Amino acid sequence: MSFYVYLSGEIHTDWREQIAQGAEAAGLDVVFTSPVTDHEASDAAGDHLGTEGNQFWRDHKSSKVNAIRTRTLIEQSDLVVVRFGDKYKQWNAAFDAGYCAALDKPYITLHGEEIIHPLKEVDAAAMAWATTPEQVVEILRYVTRA
Amino acid sequence: MSFYVYLSGEIHTDWREQIAQGAEAAGLDVVFTSPVTDHEASDAAGDHLGTEGNQFWRDHKSSKVNAIRTRTLIEQSDLVVVRFGDKYKQWNAAFDAGYCAALDKPYITLHGEEIIHPLKEVDAAAMAWATTPEQVVEILRYVTRA
Amino acid sequence: MSFYVYLSGEIHTDWREQIAQGAEAAGLDVVFTSPVTDHEASDAAGDHLGTEGNQFWRDHKSSKVNAIRTRTLIEQSDLVVVRFGDKYKQWNAAFDAGYCAALDKPYITLHGEEIIHPLKEVDAAAMAWATTPEQVVEILRYVTRA
Amino acid sequence: MSFYVYLSGEIHTDWREQIAQGAEAAGLDVVFTSPVTDHEASDAAGDHLGTEGNQFWRDHKSSKVNAIRTRTLIEQSDLVVVRFGDKYKQWNAAFDAGYCAALDKPYITLHGEEIIHPLKEVDAAAMAWATTPEQVVEILRYVTRA
Amino acid sequence: MSFYVYLSGEIHTDWREQIAQGAEAAGLDVVFTSPVTDHEASDAAGDHLGTEGNQFWRDHKSSKVNAIRTRTLIEQSDLVVVRFGDKYKQWNAAFDAGYCAALDKPYITLHGEEIIHPLKEVDAAAMAWATTPEQVVEILRYVTRA
Amino acid sequence: MSFYVYLSGEIHTDWREQIAQGAEAAGLDVVFTSPVTDHEASDAAGDHLGTEGNQFWRDHKSSKVNAIRTRTLIEQSDLVVVRFGDKYKQWNAAFDAGYCAALDKPYITLHGEEIIHPLKEVDAAAMAWATTPEQVVEILRYVTRA
Amino acid sequence: MSFYVYLSGEIHTDWREQIAQGAEAAGLDVVFTSPVTDHEASDAAGDHLGTEGNQFWRDHKSSKVNAIRTRTLIEQSDLVVVRFGDKYKQWNAAFDAGYCAALDKPYITLHGEEIIHPLKEVDAAAMAWATTPEQVVEILRYVTRA
Amino acid sequence: MSFYVYLSGEIHTDWREQIAQGAEAAGLDVVFTSPVTDHEASDAAGDHLGTEGNQFWRDHKSSKVNAIRTRTLIEQSDLVVVRFGDKYKQWNAAFDAGYCAALDKPYITLHGEEIIHPLKEVDAAAMAWATTPEQVVEILRYVTRA
Repeated sequence: MSFYVYLSGEIHTDWREQIAQGAEAAGLDVVFTSPVTDHEASDAAGDHLGTEGNQFWRDHKSSKVNAIRTRTLIEQSDLVVVRFGDKYKQWNAAFDAGYCAALDKPYITLHGEEIIHPLKEVDAAAMAWATTPEQVVEILRYVTRA
Repeated sequence: MSFYVYLSGEIHTDWREQIAQGAEAAGLDVVFTSPVTDHEASDAAGDHLGTEGNQFWRDHKSSKVNAIRTRTLIEQSDLVVVRFGDKYKQWNAAFDAGYCAALDKPYITLHGEEIIHPLKEVDAAAMAWATTPEQVVEILRYVTRA
Repeated sequence: MSFYVYLSGEIHTDWREQIAQGAEAAGLDVVFTSPVTDHEASDAAGDHLGTEGNQFWRDHKSSKVNAIRTRTLIEQSDLVVVRFGDKYKQWNAAFDAGYCAALDKPYITLHGEEIIHPLKEVDAAAMAWATTPEQVVEILRYVTRA
Repeated sequence: MSFYVYLSGEIHTDWREQIAQGAEAAGLDVVFTSPVTDHEASDAAGDHLGTEGNQFWRDHKSSKVNAIRTRTLIEQSDLVVVRFGDKYKQWNAAFDAGYCAALDKPYITLHGEEIIHPLKEVDAAAMAWATTPEQVVEILRYVTRA
Repeated sequence: MSFYVYLSGEIHTDWREQIAQGAEAAGLDVVFTSPVTDHEASDAAGDHLGTEGNQFWRDHKSSKVNAIRTRTLIEQSDLVVVRFGDKYKQWNAAFDAGYCAALDKPYITLHGEEIIHPLKEVDAAAMAWATTPEQVVEILRYVTRA
Repeated sequence: MSFYVYLSGEIHTDWREQIAQGAEAAGLDVVFTSPVTDHEASDAAGDHLGTEGNQFWRDHKSSKVNAIRTRTLIEQSDLVVVRFGDKYKQWNAAFDAGYCAALDKPYITLHGEEIIHPLKEVDAAAMAWATTPEQVVEILRYVTRA
Repeated sequence: MSFYVYLSGEIHTDWREQIAQGAEAAGLDVVFTSPVTDHEASDAAGDHLGTEGNQFWRDHKSSKVNAIRTRTLIEQSDLVVVRFGDKYKQWNAAFDAGYCAALDKPYITLHGEEIIHPLKEVDAAAMAWATTPEQVVEILRYVTRA
Repeated sequence: MSFYVYLSGEIHTDWREQIAQGAEAAGLDVVFTSPVTDHEASDAAGDHLGTEGNQFWRDHKSSKVNAIRTRTLIEQSDLVVVRFGDKYKQWNAAFDAGYCAALDKPYITLHGEEIIHPLKEVDAAAMAWATTPEQVVEILRYVTRA
């Protein structure tokens, strides 16, 4: 069976592509999935269901439409990688980590050293902490070796 | 039966006390629980298990000792209130929200309007969004009325 | 241990009182719980969280505040009684029945003969169908006898 | 993997066909399933197991035979669409919604504005509310995009 | 906490009384529960819900009313004792054993040597096989000792 | 997807073959599984693990080896058919029914009218009661129709 | 509520007493439970059910009688402490740790530095590693502070 | 469907190869999986994530990377074989057994007679105890026969 990996979190850098390319270069039998990473499309995911007069409900509707996709993909995955960048609140990434923890879905984190302390609870329930996409690929290579 | 409410998140303002006092004033049969809110004690929760040479493992040990407490209290609660203040990363709060969502444990959020957008995924799975401790008390009053 | 019974459904007749009085008259050790049955208060349960410009979101907020109460009570109960009257859509009652069915929470229905056919899926997963509060009391008397 | 969608509820209009055609026109990799939508066949699903002298047991047997099919399909689906039309009680549709809610199976509703209020509890636990089959197709297009 | 023991199976001999008396004599903190053991009352448990023209539906209704009681008690118990006597089919006892096995509820069997072979699947998932009520009491004494 | 059906119970008549042939004749996409139905092989399933001096342990070992097979197949099935014949104790069949009931695995029973009363608890949790293999095939035809 | 702690593992030193005395001295609201720690009684727990001709079945019966007690106590606990001493195989302790890990029951280990390497998988899923009973008491003091 | 078997435990003898060859010779449709059995690679599985100053954290990181693989494979398997050799502590094998027991994942043990007593709790929850790879193959042959 292929190994399914859901890539959660930061959408403003190319870390997903780096992991995917690394896995392909290594010839790994891994299928990657992710949320919709087009920021504007994601924010607008519920707009076609009717215009909202305030921001809260617009966000609410779009978040739920996105959740139809993301929860299904998380549940189908064998491993989740949760990436925290150096910008933005990224509470959705921490939310996904907590969601995985409660489901006993293994996840690893990918983030720099400068945010170790605020991520301590998220890292405490993770199976590994990586700082580079190459390390993630190396983990995938290891866990899928014949 | 008493109604159990776990108060997750921000530890630098007195929102927990405000809710507790409001509930007491209203005569509600609610038991409040929370993480250890003494910041330094929390960061040091694992120190007695041995000194660590780097920050990651010190945080790791303390976070897990804290998790023994927090996961038990979350699972024993009927409702979780997750508070996001206007400072710090507060990824642990979002992590708790995700944890609740996966367990089908009802939670509500308590935060200001200025962080609606980054909290949209967290709010999408919540049973309510409140902006003041008084609103939380009002919810508690309603859900526990005879 | 007391036997916990959640009384779901119709709020416009006094069937809950009839069951409670019957149980008391029979000296049963049963604790009854229910949703907030004050129709206006129930519809307004979320109003204190802010005014909404349209009906959908007002209903949405109030329904979720009510669900904090009702899901907790359903999960704490040993038996759920779902009442369907001869008026209104009462989709919330059928929703509660489906919720119980998926959780393996035993439930019984209480309704007249004229709605047997539209309730066939709801009755198919129920442990009994009663037509009068007296029959419900008789079931409670039987299942709790020493 | 294909995305599995169970279409629950109303059987007297062609909304299922509209969604299926829209999905096909959009080239989506979606598999649609549904209950048996032939009303007479559905009511008679248990008749071959023996004739019943009263309506309740005839309905009871047929509903359970139908449930063998519907519960399996609901559990195999990634998303459920629950349709409420403007006629009939449709308690089975609300029952399915409650069943999904308890299983954490994402569902969306499809209904007109005139029944917002009686469906408020059903909508409160849904991931989206759509008013047209086209909106459902748009949600499917979004959640399955590459 | 008291230790809860559900006594399932045969209703025509006094094995329940023997175990209860033995436990009392030994001063054990054990609470015993059981189905309604009055055979006629049990068969008639659903009769007050309306007369049935055939045996199947009369049995069906009564069995479900009984199940409201028995499933709750099984789920509340720490241990189930399943007794098979030398008469009758006793499929309900084997059904309870299978129910316990799937729930990971520990159960022990109580039966004579002459029915070892037909009970082999039931015994295979049991925590012990006893042949006398005294042995059951001894197990209870052991598992509850301070 | 094919529909998986586990055929539990009686091994001394050809009811499994009748159902399989009926399903094949009807062109149904159903996969049938079953326990090992060779009685002697089944009783001897654990003999190769070492000779036992008494019947209880010989049966114990064989039953557990059989359970490796049967539990896996039951869990993989969409429906279980539990057959009770007119001979033998068949407690394993009732055990399987209880096991299915606790797992929410739909099952139907197949037995004659003369054993309605002793099977009332088993039938009460079943989705249907059939008296002939043809009726089982008809149920399969119905639940798998396009 | 009291905090329940199950003390698993080594039975040849007084580590349980040290923890209990430390907790009492600290005034903690903790209830300690444990397996039967009388080695001979534990090995003989099933002897009263009949004499066995070989060691395997004697051990088998006694282990299962013990498991009635230990599984119930593990499931009722908020935290499990698993102690590994410097003698014996102690596979039962590692078994309990794995059991806890799969149930998401938090556990901590208590063992010396010389067995870090062979316990790495057990420690990897633990919430903490302590080397002295005093450290365990300190963890209990922390997680139960008001 | 193929039958999935995870081979847990001892990595210093060729028991996995013997079972695989036996299964192949018997023409069984069985897929075998296992942890990474290269001892040095396994101990070093987390080294690429950064050098650690002490043995505990090096082991901790590697164990968790290994667990990403092993837990996924255990959960995907239909049966787990847990092998205990005559050397080393092998607590990871007992941990896997406990993990399976809590998940209701059937497992069998493979070990010599000289360690019956210390493995009694592990064997008590197993579906079988084998002493040779040939016996394991025979079990696989039996449980997968057509």
